[in-house]
Amino acid sequence: MYNKLMDKKISEKVINRLTLYHCILQDFISKGNEYISSKQIATLLHIDDSQVRKDINLLNNSGKSRVGYIVRELKKSIETTLGFAKTKKAYIIGAGNLGMALAKYDNFASYGFNIIGLFDNDSKKIGTEINNKKILDIKNLEQAAKKHGVEIAILTVPGKYAQKTAEHIVKSNLKYIWNFTPVVLDVPDDIQVWNENLMGNFLQFTYKI
Amino acid sequence: MYNKLMDKKISEKVINRLTLYHCILQDFISKGNEYISSKQIATLLHIDDSQVRKDINLLNNSGKSRVGYIVRELKKSIETTLGFAKTKKAYIIGAGNLGMALAKYDNFASYGFNIIGLFDNDSKKIGTEINNKKILDIKNLEQAAKKHGVEIAILTVPGKYAQKTAEHIVKSNLKYIWNFTPVVLDVPDDIQVWNENLMGNFLQFTYKI
Repeated sequence: MYNKLMDKKISEKVINRLTLYHCILQDFISKGNEYISSKQIATLLHIDDSQVRKDINLLNNSGKSRVGYIVRELKKSIETTLGFAKTKKAYIIGAGNLGMALAKYDNFASYGFNIIGLFDNDSKKIGTEINNKKILDIKNLEQAAKKHGVEIAILTVPGKYAQKTAEHIVKSNLKYIWNFTPVVLDVPDDIQVWNENLMGNFLQFTYKI
Repeated sequence: MYNKLMDKKISEKVINRLTLYHCILQDFISKGNEYISSKQIATLLHIDDSQVRKDINLLNNSGKSRVGYIVRELKKSIETTLGFAKTKKAYIIGAGNLGMALAKYDNFASYGFNIIGLFDNDSKKIGTEINNKKILDIKNLEQAAKKHGVEIAILTVPGKYAQKTAEHIVKSNLKYIWNFTPVVLDVPDDIQVWNENLMGNFLQFTYKI
């Protein structure tokens, strides 16, 4: 299918809104609703409905009727556009509270994002399971990643171990780090780091309070 | 002090970068470094150093020498500009793995963000402590929030309880919800919701992989 978004740089804000629309559509489906209007989506997100229509117009969505968008078709359009179909495998590095929380976050799977295991250096944790995912010995990261074709690491260790662990991830030949630690990692240029900067997100929200 | 950023809408990207610079500066201080160049910051973040200089020019930063910015002064400028001095109090609602992880995240405090307690409905958790913060009975939220002047709720309950819990938060007179659940909340217009849309963040990062 021709995908308009492929041709341009997708704005981060549009991607973010589309995933929120997707959450709303899932909720509508679970409630048995067949149609949804741009106004309904806009009201839930406290944004303008012209914005919602503009975003949806970027999709290859044909499921528009007089009573609104067809919920299932709109959901599928978002999935196609954002590439959920292409499954991405990842490991969580650090089986503390945050790593455990992310391992339990089943919503990831419905976006084609597959967390296939956790790694830690705590012998009490190694060999146990969380949400059907094994906790493995960090020493075996390289071997496991190679075997299962995993290139994404979700880094959730305490800040003081972040840099050292990142270096181990790089040595283990993973290529992408989703960094949940409050540390800016010093890694080679060919490693892509996405900083999940919770404090920055919070300040964007609250600087006007 | 005159604050240039007060006069304009701060771009979310600038705020986000400033908090990352702040992380780097904290790290430099702990390593005993007195000066930092825009190039050093830019290299760590894999961005252009002209961008770093442009962001720093927005601050009231006078600590520039021939060998670079004075680390401590630059750090203080960021803190003043982003309003860290004004402490904001919050409760975590939901003492599961994610709530626990955020309660342990000491970095928040250095940004003037004070998590003063957690709330849950699990009698086994109520009365215990995590990182010197008490876990309290969700039934007492309204009373506690009023007593301590807390207006921010960090929502970390499982998705299926998100809407119901949000309604309880609203009834308890809190005004801001930092929503970590994958659910779009249906709340009145005067309640501000910040969706910490992890999946959206992830897709921004990975849609090109």
